[in-house]
Amino acid sequence: MRAEIISVPTEMISGELLDTNAHYLARHLTTLGLDLHFISQVGDNLQRISEAVRNALGRADIVFLTGGLGPTEDDVTREAIATALGEEMHMDAEAEHQLRAFFAARGATLPERNLKQAMLIPSARAIPNPRGTAPGWWVEKEGRILVAMPGPPAEMERMWEVDVAPRLARQAGEGVIISRTLKTIGIGEGRVDEMLGPLLKSVNPTIGVYAKTDGVHVRLTVKARGREAARDIVEPVEAAARRILGDAVWGADDDTLEGVVGRMLQGHGLTLATMESCPGGLLASTITDVPGSSAYFKGGYVAYTARMKMSLGVRAELIERHGVVSPEVAADMARAARENLSADYGIGITGVAGPDELEGKPPGTVHIAVHHSRAPEATSYTLNQGRLANKRRAVTTALALLRRTLLARNPSS
Amino acid sequence: MRAEIISVPTEMISGELLDTNAHYLARHLTTLGLDLHFISQVGDNLQRISEAVRNALGRADIVFLTGGLGPTEDDVTREAIATALGEEMHMDAEAEHQLRAFFAARGATLPERNLKQAMLIPSARAIPNPRGTAPGWWVEKEGRILVAMPGPPAEMERMWEVDVAPRLARQAGEGVIISRTLKTIGIGEGRVDEMLGPLLKSVNPTIGVYAKTDGVHVRLTVKARGREAARDIVEPVEAAARRILGDAVWGADDDTLEGVVGRMLQGHGLTLATMESCPGGLLASTITDVPGSSAYFKGGYVAYTARMKMSLGVRAELIERHGVVSPEVAADMARAARENLSADYGIGITGVAGPDELEGKPPGTVHIAVHHSRAPEATSYTLNQGRLANKRRAVTTALALLRRTLLARNPSS
Repeated sequence: MRAEIISVPTEMISGELLDTNAHYLARHLTTLGLDLHFISQVGDNLQRISEAVRNALGRADIVFLTGGLGPTEDDVTREAIATALGEEMHMDAEAEHQLRAFFAARGATLPERNLKQAMLIPSARAIPNPRGTAPGWWVEKEGRILVAMPGPPAEMERMWEVDVAPRLARQAGEGVIISRTLKTIGIGEGRVDEMLGPLLKSVNPTIGVYAKTDGVHVRLTVKARGREAARDIVEPVEAAARRILGDAVWGADDDTLEGVVGRMLQGHGLTLATMESCPGGLLASTITDVPGSSAYFKGGYVAYTARMKMSLGVRAELIERHGVVSPEVAADMARAARENLSADYGIGITGVAGPDELEGKPPGTVHIAVHHSRAPEATSYTLNQGRLANKRRAVTTALALLRRTLLARNPSS
Repeated sequence: MRAEIISVPTEMISGELLDTNAHYLARHLTTLGLDLHFISQVGDNLQRISEAVRNALGRADIVFLTGGLGPTEDDVTREAIATALGEEMHMDAEAEHQLRAFFAARGATLPERNLKQAMLIPSARAIPNPRGTAPGWWVEKEGRILVAMPGPPAEMERMWEVDVAPRLARQAGEGVIISRTLKTIGIGEGRVDEMLGPLLKSVNPTIGVYAKTDGVHVRLTVKARGREAARDIVEPVEAAARRILGDAVWGADDDTLEGVVGRMLQGHGLTLATMESCPGGLLASTITDVPGSSAYFKGGYVAYTARMKMSLGVRAELIERHGVVSPEVAADMARAARENLSADYGIGITGVAGPDELEGKPPGTVHIAVHHSRAPEATSYTLNQGRLANKRRAVTTALALLRRTLLARNPSS
């Protein structure tokens, strides 16, 4: 079934709010086997909404509308649906009764302007909304379904969970869409594409390759009668992709690099310490985004000056000879962090976040080292995408280097 | 001018990503006097994108497209535009030259599949993209404009700022919408609403009050013939709002709390050092998000263990007597950071990020202190909204406390 979402949020159109309702619905639609083709946001204008509804019903089997069901003059979603379908609105006695009861239960009388929330058209049934005054509309006409839900996320989500999703699940029968994302690092988008080669021609599952800030993602999407069948289809293709990509695959679906590295450390009973300059604390902050990271993270230094580095034991002669931004100083920062905090692994990062150069080295220059009981691992690169992206890339690269070091320690992990 | 946005992110359609590009563009379009009517998201499918482009060009004066300009088979935005406009693509010598130079500068040769990024149609001109391999397209045809930009936010935003927005500003003519956002901290949303009272009835500018992670924002939006006229209308209302809200207003528009505090420090020639446990480095990272922060930030400690705190000079007897999560330890962390790094101001934060409690104190417990030459400033609260939100709130609160301390030092600043 082809599905489409229309949101009616004025603030969205002026860029104030991200459209979390559409995001929520999109996430939940696929698990019901619905195939989402379009999402649109339309300002609260009767003519534009009714045009959007007409377009949507012309190309989709089911249309979800959120927002514009409130009591104010701006709220014209009901009128727009009625216009699009060429139907007249009437007061629904049952809906009016429930609305009066909603206000009475709160010791209030129904304001005149709220009465319009009890209106229906002949092809609509009201969907109860115990969290607010706006009932939803479930419309069926000429083999199409239109579901209108209120804009406040708490009301929309409850209506979805309790009423709309179960009803759709009953109607949808067996069909489901399942997707699986493999996350890689260390290989470029074009190269992953080439490696996967013929696999990319697959129709079910379809395979997409996407460059992200934490590496390149490979996404497999499968349609099938049920979850079991979907899994049976996706698993051999996933296994083939994993064989091709090898240990460039660091995780799947909701995994984060910091979570994966944290599990590896914790699994081996190992600990970590950091000393960073150009990421400015983002490395430590990313590591500690993981719940339970205090089990393996012993602490970090944001050593923003040469003086602070030296006070922590980084050797002055290295700084003098090679400059603060050098592979040698990165390695010594990693060593000093590890030793000061008695950790098994130390990470050192020095570089130029930008926008200005430092010691004649351009923004985006980064040196990273991981120190442990054997020879340190190190990497260097120069890539300038702006200060914040530079910080982020240094952190991702450092975590990937730590992962590689941990893998080499114990290839079975 | 009626504007419309089409984003091409497959992940969006399946609910993985919020559409930050559309959000970014929506926010910036209004300031150019463009009237945004529709936003849509379409999966990376040639037919659907070209249908979306045709629909959009049928009803808008200017269409913005983001995404789908990469080198892989999935990336079909160029083909879709060509199809929608009924034009043929050809290899552009200049674009090909730039693409080869991009790879050559990185010591690589141009992969065959990237060649399609140098394609153009007769009504398109390439927009340079120094941050990536995908140039944008600026298309003018039959009085309509279509602008295609790459999907990675860093590339899209740079292209917007350096190329697209200035060109549009020149073309936009007279009708403009200008908005002004006053950012406050320390007063709740409802209270700001009450304080502004009758001002909220204003029709031009309209005034909206929004709770955000960095406090409550008051947004004034004005429509006028031109920028001068808009400014004349908004300024007296802004001045009235500022009088009412007093020094709860810490900034406006694109100001960040870390940027404002950084300017205050730099303006007075003052320096800062930090010692944090529960934010795990996010405080230092936020401070160093500001370009030029190395002028006043002397460094930070992510003291994730009691042992590391003591090794940095935090007094053991305070930890024993009051626990690590206590106002006393926060104050001593601020002092130790300031003294170790010879800074004028020190910030100390200790607390429980969650999800587990610590020393019997619940997640969301936070103690913050600012140390300087006089008695330390301090604040404490408990509010648990999840680990990441807890980290963020601690940082915002600490920066607000530092701002208050700096204001008290010199009320004229």
